[in-house]
Amino acid sequence: MDPEKAKAHIPAPDFFSYNSRDAIIYALGVGAHAKQDIRYLYEVHEDFAPLPTFIVAPGLKAAGLLDWPGIEFDLVRILHGEQYIEIHEPLPTDARLRSECRVVDLLDKGSGALILSEITTYDDATGKKIGVQQISTFQVGAGKFGGARTSPHEKKPADIPSREPDAVVEEKTSIDQAALYRMGSGDLNPLHIDPNFAKMSGFEQPILHGLCSLGFSTRHVLSVWANNDGTQFKAMKTRFASPVIPGQTLRTEMWKEGNRIVFQTKVKETGKTVLSNCWVELKQASEKPEIEPHLAAKL
Amino acid sequence: MDPEKAKAHIPAPDFFSYNSRDAIIYALGVGAHAKQDIRYLYEVHEDFAPLPTFIVAPGLKAAGLLDWPGIEFDLVRILHGEQYIEIHEPLPTDARLRSECRVVDLLDKGSGALILSEITTYDDATGKKIGVQQISTFQVGAGKFGGARTSPHEKKPADIPSREPDAVVEEKTSIDQAALYRMGSGDLNPLHIDPNFAKMSGFEQPILHGLCSLGFSTRHVLSVWANNDGTQFKAMKTRFASPVIPGQTLRTEMWKEGNRIVFQTKVKETGKTVLSNCWVELKQASEKPEIEPHLAAKL
Repeated sequence: MDPEKAKAHIPAPDFFSYNSRDAIIYALGVGAHAKQDIRYLYEVHEDFAPLPTFIVAPGLKAAGLLDWPGIEFDLVRILHGEQYIEIHEPLPTDARLRSECRVVDLLDKGSGALILSEITTYDDATGKKIGVQQISTFQVGAGKFGGARTSPHEKKPADIPSREPDAVVEEKTSIDQAALYRMGSGDLNPLHIDPNFAKMSGFEQPILHGLCSLGFSTRHVLSVWANNDGTQFKAMKTRFASPVIPGQTLRTEMWKEGNRIVFQTKVKETGKTVLSNCWVELKQASEKPEIEPHLAAKL
Repeated sequence: MDPEKAKAHIPAPDFFSYNSRDAIIYALGVGAHAKQDIRYLYEVHEDFAPLPTFIVAPGLKAAGLLDWPGIEFDLVRILHGEQYIEIHEPLPTDARLRSECRVVDLLDKGSGALILSEITTYDDATGKKIGVQQISTFQVGAGKFGGARTSPHEKKPADIPSREPDAVVEEKTSIDQAALYRMGSGDLNPLHIDPNFAKMSGFEQPILHGLCSLGFSTRHVLSVWANNDGTQFKAMKTRFASPVIPGQTLRTEMWKEGNRIVFQTKVKETGKTVLSNCWVELKQASEKPEIEPHLAAKL
C-alpha cells in the first residue's frame, strides 16, 4: 500500500449510460413496490424519476480499485465500509454520466487498509454536476504499512439520539433480493450470489449488498419524511456494520433533527445493527412522520 | 379486418439484442430463485443459459400489430389468447436475434377477431433458426367481418387426463411480479402496472402478464420433469384462460404422457384456471417427478 502513489493517480473518466429501464430495475432491486412507489417503476408516470441512490451504480463502476497504482487489491478480502452521497441535480430519466474517481486518502487501520475514494459524477451531455460520493473500502489484512490513521476528508457519521425513535418502519427483503440488486446496480461481486465464493470470503451463504440495504432505508426515509419525493434528497452518510442475508427484514429506526433524518437499520430477526450512525439530509423534512401501511412496524 | 391484406403483409425483420443481464432479469421476472435456479441467474455459472421461454421477448417485440395492414388494432381491447413455442437451438447467452413475423390467419369468432401470428427467430450472427412461435391475439368486439372461424395453422391444446395429476407444485408470485416481468420481457403494456389503464380495460387492478404465468409454469415443468435443465425443452402450447393478480399463488398441475407433460395452472387462492389445456414437450422426461421443497404443494 502506497498512499502517495494512490492519491496521485488520475484514471480516465468512467462513462455510464442508462435508461428508464435501468433505473426501474435498480428501484425494484431496493424493494420499490408497484403500488406505493409507481413513480419509480413506471416509465411514463408523470413524476417518473430514478431514485437518488441510483447514483451508486455509476459511482461503484467508476471506483474500480483492481489496477489502481499504490493499492494491493484482493476481492476476497475487501469490505465496503462506509458510503457518502450528495446529489446536486436530480438524475435524469436517461443519461450518459461521466464519473471521475480519486483516492483522496489511504489509511492504515492496523488490521487493514482503509481506501477513501471520491467520485464526482456529471451529466456528460449538459456538463452539470449530478453528485459526489465517497466510498470507504476496507482491505482486510493490508494494514501496518505506516500510513495515517484518520483523514480530514472523511464525512462525519451521526450520533444516535438517546430518545426513542420518532419513526420506525420494517420491510422484508426477498430471498432473491441480492440476485435482483446485482442486475439493478451492476455490482456483480460473486459474494452476493455464489455460495462457494461466499464461503471463501468467510460467510455461510451469499449476503445482500450493503448498498442494497442503503437503498431500502433511504426509500424508508423518503417515504416517511419526504412524501416519497426523491427530489427532496440532498445527502446521506451510511456505515455498513454487519451483513444482511437476503430474505431478512430490515428495520429502519429514524430520528428527525430538523431537516436531517438520523437513522440506523437493524435486521429484525436478529436485532443486529446493519447500517449504523447514518443520516439523510432533506431539503425540507415533513413535520410529522407518515407511515404507509406496507411499511408499518409492529413495535 | 381484412384477412387477405393482413396475410399478404411482410414486415421488415425485427432485431432484438440481449446479453446475460437481460436473460437474468427475465428469469427473475418469471420467479427463478437464486438458490435453486442459479444456472439461470448467475452469468458465470458453468451451466448458465437463458430460460427457453425467454424467446417470448423477441417474439412479442416482433409481433407488433399496431400498424399492420388489414388489422384494426385497439390496445385497450386486446387479449393474448394462446401461445405456442418451439425451440430448435438453445438461446445463446447473448445474441442479436432476427425475427420474422407473419399473420398466418385472421379468424372471425363473432365476439371478436382472432389474429394468428407466427414468428420465426434466428441468431442473426450464425443464421441458425432458434425457434418458432405462434401468438393468438383476440381483438374484442372486432368480429363479424365475414372471415373463417378456424384455421389449419392452429396448434392443438392438450386434453387434460381424467386421473389425478402426477405432480403438483405451488409458488407464490410477488406483488411486484408484473413490474419486474415488464423489465424482463420488454412487454410494457400499461395494463400490467397502471391502475387507471387497468380500469379502462375492465380490470379492478393491474394484472400479471399471461406470458409471466407461462414462464412460471414452464419453470415448474422443467424443475419437476427435466432436472431443471432448460435444454430439455422442445415445444409448448398454452391457453390464457383468466388473469392473475400479482401476489397470487400459481398452482401447476402436471400429468406425464411419455415425453409430453400436460399441465394446467390455477390460482390457488381462487381455484380459477388461468392456463388451460397446456403441454410441454421435453426431449426426455424423467420417469418420476422430483419436487424441490420450495415448490412443494400442500395438496
